[in-house]
Amino acid sequence: MPQPQDFATRLENFATRFGDALDRELRAEKLSGPGRAPDRLIEAMRHGALNGGKRLRPFLLVETARLFDAGEPETLPAALAVEFIHCYSLVHDDLPAMDDDDTRRGQPTVHKAYDEATAILAGDALLTHAFGLLASETCHPDPAIRAALVTELVAGSGAGGMAGGQMRDLEGEKGGFSTDDITEMQQMKTGALIRSAVRMGALLGGASPDQFKALTLFGEEAGRAFQLADDILDLTASSEAMGKATGKDHARQKPTLVSRIGLNAAYSHLGDRIHHAISALMMFGPEADTLRETARYFAERQK
Amino acid sequence: MPQPQDFATRLENFATRFGDALDRELRAEKLSGPGRAPDRLIEAMRHGALNGGKRLRPFLLVETARLFDAGEPETLPAALAVEFIHCYSLVHDDLPAMDDDDTRRGQPTVHKAYDEATAILAGDALLTHAFGLLASETCHPDPAIRAALVTELVAGSGAGGMAGGQMRDLEGEKGGFSTDDITEMQQMKTGALIRSAVRMGALLGGASPDQFKALTLFGEEAGRAFQLADDILDLTASSEAMGKATGKDHARQKPTLVSRIGLNAAYSHLGDRIHHAISALMMFGPEADTLRETARYFAERQK
Repeated sequence: MPQPQDFATRLENFATRFGDALDRELRAEKLSGPGRAPDRLIEAMRHGALNGGKRLRPFLLVETARLFDAGEPETLPAALAVEFIHCYSLVHDDLPAMDDDDTRRGQPTVHKAYDEATAILAGDALLTHAFGLLASETCHPDPAIRAALVTELVAGSGAGGMAGGQMRDLEGEKGGFSTDDITEMQQMKTGALIRSAVRMGALLGGASPDQFKALTLFGEEAGRAFQLADDILDLTASSEAMGKATGKDHARQKPTLVSRIGLNAAYSHLGDRIHHAISALMMFGPEADTLRETARYFAERQK
Repeated sequence: MPQPQDFATRLENFATRFGDALDRELRAEKLSGPGRAPDRLIEAMRHGALNGGKRLRPFLLVETARLFDAGEPETLPAALAVEFIHCYSLVHDDLPAMDDDDTRRGQPTVHKAYDEATAILAGDALLTHAFGLLASETCHPDPAIRAALVTELVAGSGAGGMAGGQMRDLEGEKGGFSTDDITEMQQMKTGALIRSAVRMGALLGGASPDQFKALTLFGEEAGRAFQLADDILDLTASSEAMGKATGKDHARQKPTLVSRIGLNAAYSHLGDRIHHAISALMMFGPEADTLRETARYFAERQK
């Protein structure tokens, strides 16, 4: 089994390679339609995507597909699509009307570096291009798989997934949320896209129904672990380490599980989630060790 | 050939049927993912889509597919997808950071009826769901066609199409636009989606390469005619008839072709566009009369 240090290095190396792939994708020639994409829009899309992110969602997708011997180049377009969706959601969530964040990863957010209108359009264009990547022949030779990938990503990111979760999160700020409401909101807002990343890897790999079910469970538990860790970090990490304002959810009295059940219980829950995520991978044996490490990393990350 | 009155009635009847289809599509059970779409988000999506629009883009798609004997029910999911994209763009364009419009079709815009955050998310969710409709098996039995429809709609609505056109439009407000710049901006902002609607109808119908080319030309000319008519109406129609503020582009000194070349030259250009659009349909004979009527309607509409 790879050691934690080895895993962190692998993840970093992936993020570097993947950042290069994002850079190559976000260029006028890749974004053209009947017209040429305006420079300002491309620059804002690049600002929103080429931000040194950890690229956890594409990593999960690629590593899930690798269980089925699918290589990284074959899974790249779908991995890019998932990250484009993640990036668009950050660009829109940072807007003044939403979470109103001025910085992300130590850089000005897109609406600060450009303006609000440009940020809205850059998010829209990233979202749209994600589906273009999935529909392209380079994504998978079988169009039925390409269509299934679109269906999966729509479910994970739309009104019944990420976008719906953000809506519930905003409603939750007004109060009246039960612990179950918070859990459901978080599973949509953060969990749904992580789940989709894993399921898209499984679709690309040609998973059997049993394998697909096990990987779905893994994705769900990993997503819960990720969100719990995020809530804990919001309370415990310095804003310097995070590259964005922390303690913000707490200051806003935004409902998080941590604020309801306390730090100790949250750590205990987090341990349970990791355990369930790892157990879900039983049938894959040591081949799935990287996915197991990823789930552990979610819990142990310091930023 | 159907008389203008007949055509207007046909279009109205279509808009009524299509509005019912939109209504059936924008419900929790159709929008679900790993979670349930929140009621507030669904309501805002419905507010943005069920607004009594003329449904010209889906009409073009359906009527283009009809040239190849594809029936309306078979083309409905793709037609809904095009209209969802159109509606999302209106919801986002109306935002204070963009065109800052308080009313549309006599109703408060989505951010006025709800709030800005909800309007941003409703637009995102409409956009996302559009691609879900195209990827669904109900859209077309052949997944290669479904993937091609996604590719087409991405090209028409993304950074090199509609979203890029809106970006250029915002840049144009700062001045320095040539007449060519305005034409190119309008072809992206408005023309690209109209072109895509026609091309998607052609894809659904299984058009030959020659037919596809002719229909693309028709879509481009119809799109130009539509935008010219829109610019003329902005100057000449009352805001009561339009159900939104008019003269606004003019008041903002927003560059339009009309402001550059004058009303008379604009009317003359419009006539040319209609002529070219109609000529492009030569090979389809009288079967294409409804499409011809549609192009004429674009020029003659009073609102």
